[in-house]
Amino acid sequence: MTMVRSAPTAAPVLPTRGRLRPLGLEEVRVTGGFWAERQSVNAAASLEHIAHWLEREGWIRNFDLVAEGDLAERRGREFSDSEIYKFLEALAWEIGRTGDAGLESRFRAIVDRVARAQDADGYLNTKFGHAGQEPRWSDLVWGHELYCVGHLLQAAVARARTRPDADDGLVAIARRAADNICAAFGPDGIDGLCGHPCIETALVEFGRVTGDDRYLAQAALFVERRGHGRLGDVEWGREYFQDESPVRQATVLRGHAVRANYLAAGAVDVAAETDDPVLMKAVRAQWRNAVARRTYVTGGQGSRHQDEAFGADWVLPPDRAYSETCAGVGSVMLAWRLLLASGDAGYADLIERTLYNVVSTSPATDGRRFFYANTLHRRVLGASPDVERPSIRASAAQRAPWFEVSCCPTNVARTLASLAAYVATTDDEGLQIHQYVTGTIAHGPADGPERRVTVTTAYPDAGEIRVRIDSDDDRPWTLSVRVPAWAGQGATLTAGGETRPVAPGYATERRTWRGGDEVVLNLPVAPRFTYPDGRIDAVRGCVAVERGPLVLAVESVDVPGGEDLDELRVDTSQPPTLADGRVTVRCRRLEPHDHDWPYNGSEAAPAATATADLLEVPLIAYHDWANRGPSTMRVWLPTI
Amino acid sequence: MTMVRSAPTAAPVLPTRGRLRPLGLEEVRVTGGFWAERQSVNAAASLEHIAHWLEREGWIRNFDLVAEGDLAERRGREFSDSEIYKFLEALAWEIGRTGDAGLESRFRAIVDRVARAQDADGYLNTKFGHAGQEPRWSDLVWGHELYCVGHLLQAAVARARTRPDADDGLVAIARRAADNICAAFGPDGIDGLCGHPCIETALVEFGRVTGDDRYLAQAALFVERRGHGRLGDVEWGREYFQDESPVRQATVLRGHAVRANYLAAGAVDVAAETDDPVLMKAVRAQWRNAVARRTYVTGGQGSRHQDEAFGADWVLPPDRAYSETCAGVGSVMLAWRLLLASGDAGYADLIERTLYNVVSTSPATDGRRFFYANTLHRRVLGASPDVERPSIRASAAQRAPWFEVSCCPTNVARTLASLAAYVATTDDEGLQIHQYVTGTIAHGPADGPERRVTVTTAYPDAGEIRVRIDSDDDRPWTLSVRVPAWAGQGATLTAGGETRPVAPGYATERRTWRGGDEVVLNLPVAPRFTYPDGRIDAVRGCVAVERGPLVLAVESVDVPGGEDLDELRVDTSQPPTLADGRVTVRCRRLEPHDHDWPYNGSEAAPAATATADLLEVPLIAYHDWANRGPSTMRVWLPTI
Repeated sequence: MTMVRSAPTAAPVLPTRGRLRPLGLEEVRVTGGFWAERQSVNAAASLEHIAHWLEREGWIRNFDLVAEGDLAERRGREFSDSEIYKFLEALAWEIGRTGDAGLESRFRAIVDRVARAQDADGYLNTKFGHAGQEPRWSDLVWGHELYCVGHLLQAAVARARTRPDADDGLVAIARRAADNICAAFGPDGIDGLCGHPCIETALVEFGRVTGDDRYLAQAALFVERRGHGRLGDVEWGREYFQDESPVRQATVLRGHAVRANYLAAGAVDVAAETDDPVLMKAVRAQWRNAVARRTYVTGGQGSRHQDEAFGADWVLPPDRAYSETCAGVGSVMLAWRLLLASGDAGYADLIERTLYNVVSTSPATDGRRFFYANTLHRRVLGASPDVERPSIRASAAQRAPWFEVSCCPTNVARTLASLAAYVATTDDEGLQIHQYVTGTIAHGPADGPERRVTVTTAYPDAGEIRVRIDSDDDRPWTLSVRVPAWAGQGATLTAGGETRPVAPGYATERRTWRGGDEVVLNLPVAPRFTYPDGRIDAVRGCVAVERGPLVLAVESVDVPGGEDLDELRVDTSQPPTLADGRVTVRCRRLEPHDHDWPYNGSEAAPAATATADLLEVPLIAYHDWANRGPSTMRVWLPTI
Repeated sequence: MTMVRSAPTAAPVLPTRGRLRPLGLEEVRVTGGFWAERQSVNAAASLEHIAHWLEREGWIRNFDLVAEGDLAERRGREFSDSEIYKFLEALAWEIGRTGDAGLESRFRAIVDRVARAQDADGYLNTKFGHAGQEPRWSDLVWGHELYCVGHLLQAAVARARTRPDADDGLVAIARRAADNICAAFGPDGIDGLCGHPCIETALVEFGRVTGDDRYLAQAALFVERRGHGRLGDVEWGREYFQDESPVRQATVLRGHAVRANYLAAGAVDVAAETDDPVLMKAVRAQWRNAVARRTYVTGGQGSRHQDEAFGADWVLPPDRAYSETCAGVGSVMLAWRLLLASGDAGYADLIERTLYNVVSTSPATDGRRFFYANTLHRRVLGASPDVERPSIRASAAQRAPWFEVSCCPTNVARTLASLAAYVATTDDEGLQIHQYVTGTIAHGPADGPERRVTVTTAYPDAGEIRVRIDSDDDRPWTLSVRVPAWAGQGATLTAGGETRPVAPGYATERRTWRGGDEVVLNLPVAPRFTYPDGRIDAVRGCVAVERGPLVLAVESVDVPGGEDLDELRVDTSQPPTLADGRVTVRCRRLEPHDHDWPYNGSEAAPAATATADLLEVPLIAYHDWANRGPSTMRVWLPTI
């Protein structure tokens, strides 16, 4: 199915082919509730905070140094340019969302500095290719030059779709950089690829913006070049770069989890644009296997600190979870593209889970500190990070203001600013709502009157989602609302005065809608125990507690008796309780015990004979943990 | 208690103060059984194999390059010199053990090459300090210069104690190198220390050999300098070098597991020689806590791949176990020193466990391939390592012939060659046998006739250990034999025709012994289930199977139905069976099942309703796994 568009939709992904068509920021307005609050903190605090650190660390000034011709004082890692571009992308979406004039001038000021650093032939990078630096493209494995341009293109996409008539020049900068890459890496150019995928998905989207097919062709070339060992060997193996197996042949996401998701997203884009069902099917299978066997209950991906990578199937230790924030962002990017291609609700389920439990976990309540890695189990209190200097990425026991490798804050910021674009889609039948936010959705199909709805909900705190139709139509169309897989029992849909049970997937209601019509989806958000597959060794004998899309956690600051959560044992004979907005589970605490050697000839007696009083232990949303000072925390709780 | 010695004992550790006095290679002869076979393979295959790779990789030639004055072609990492020294140490012990003339000439040839690389002032290192190289001591954090000299001193100790009158010059080389260090790093010298401990324990021992107190003083200075942040910050934190807390204040072994053990061994040496009970007590507490909460059932230490480090308490994932071979060697070194100081059987217990399940696991049956890391759970078949080039250390699914960082083969070789020195000790009361090997023990106390015993046993395959007295005495002395903690029930001692139960610790028999007297210790080596402490999340709901000191494992090549061991569930209602020398446990296999999402609202049904036939699944000694081609393996087995 090929679609015809009248005007750019303000969304990061606009496939020309696929099952669903995204709605953009101008069509979906988030007006209240959970995500509006997150977006508000992002706008009011995080963007300013990020700008401060980008200047403080000299990463923006690097562009000035190129223009000045003296790079002796360049600071930051080889990929620091990308943070400026992700910040520009975040600003572009935020400006598109709110029209903030202050952000607009900040945006333009940075674009001007970037523009002055671009070489005459379009090459743009502050780390390579100038006097006193290593030559261009001399370190494709670790240099991140193509990766950085990828983020530049994504920023330009955001700008082109939110301010198509702006004269700031970002799109032109991006076009010159993309052309430079096509010239350097085209079929007759360097037979290479970037150690960190990103350019693939970025080139496809930039091709969608510009209508220039060369960019798609170059993206396809990069996708196909990977998997043949061109990047050589590293200590962690070629899987780290997904260079051990061609994308078409791989069966699961593997290696560095951000790289894996970005690459797969690019492969879906190429498959969609080139109508390549074989490539699409390969990525879908990789996603399916990764989600079935290599993903944390939070949606987090990557269980290995050493190489920030997926582990083998079933290797999902909560206490050494890496679950990098950026891998969560990448997972949302991938799942969204697969959802658009297929219309399958499972992709939207993972997006919801990841948004609430990874992307939302990274920023602190104040929007000025971030988790880089998102552990599911913190055993000991840790020192608070130094707020005066960048933290080492994964070692922080608490959120840190900035990192030496600081990819996560900007990635969260661009995702939150563009969040409305992940809420709803259309197809020839009607409107699909994938994520539940309080707000409005308006879409004018090419062949009929505008369709407008208002969504009102206290989700995820409450399970009622009211969708009111605000427009009249003279022909029927279908309203589809997603019933998450976790709502397998007890979800109902009320429409036309009738209530019926609905199963996971999309519940649909086809009518000739009139203004004032209302559909009410009720999702069962009572807290529930969740049991892991018996093959996940690391959490055998444990339960998690979930509520709606939220994974809950026990944090020591809420627990009588201190920080040693590892001695709590949950009594699962009664379900978690919800009272006054607070979820509790019934636990016993193991008797204090110690021994010289922790392996013995009989089952651990203390667990079996615990005689302590039952405790009612409260839980909080996992994404809220570590906002109240040093603490210990568990998502998975051993059972009695 | 100060001891007077008549002649050097051929042992790596000879404290002048402490509870027990070691017996050396001339006093303890291993003549048959498990360890004799290991020593034989070490002598016949491993030493030759190591020599081959040391030449092939150019690490010995580096010494020639220094002598030739052109280091442009130096090869190997900054610590490669240490491998030559560990190899010399292994040769020295082996020559001491067997008098092999071929090894003697090999030894002398290498010493000659080392000698020519020593600078006039005693400085000795092939990586620093010469034309075209970084200056001496310019990178104490990572340069390993002091570490390398530490291994040189240990080689010299071995030589001095096995061939005290040899004219090869190694001891003189070592003395000049040690003097150079004392001059450079003494109280008025560089206020620094080495990123990798080793020099501390080496200097103390070299001081014991030479009687020069300056070396002890320098060792004490290095021990005290650590823990104050002199090494600066690294990504993994100052714990990596044990530089975040002074040795006297630390409460547990932490950070890089080899560094931690080597440092602690040096601290014990300093404490013993300076009669410092406070320092000794601190290290004993660190050891106790590390063993109680941070050690694998195999005795292996270090659960983190990223920094080869101890994790937090209870973080002991079997599938990401690092359990580096060298950490096992270091653990034996530390526990032996603590045993000599205290006489507590727990130290000998850990030595036994570590020797059988870590040190013995590293080398293949043929002695020509090694594990660097010793995982306790291999989930997927892996590619066989390239035998034509060094492997990356921890990534090998099977043993590899050599590594880019190849510390383990030489460490195993020196340990096996000196193994007899860890078997028995004396004190004023008599003779203590700590490890059970078939062989002879002879010791002539200063004040009486020589005491000779013969030990005959098929241990660890059988639990009977016969100790026959081969000498007559006219005064009583005490024979002590260790009853391991795992033998808590059923161990008996037969002496003078009477059999009595004996408890873990040392069972003693005091008599005026006559030649032909016999004591028989019977240890219960029936296979048994072992349960982990309930706080070790990673193996909750699992059992291990042990037999005597051996940890057993299920390896896929023995299991009908293929490589997926993760679906086996053990029925613990009946103990493991031993028949025809083969141990089996009764298991069910989970029904094949798959799902889109591995976290569900009810307990994993397949485990609870397994209806498959019961399988008798065989186990092997863990140290024997991966000797029969690619396989999967589990030590910890989930229960039904």
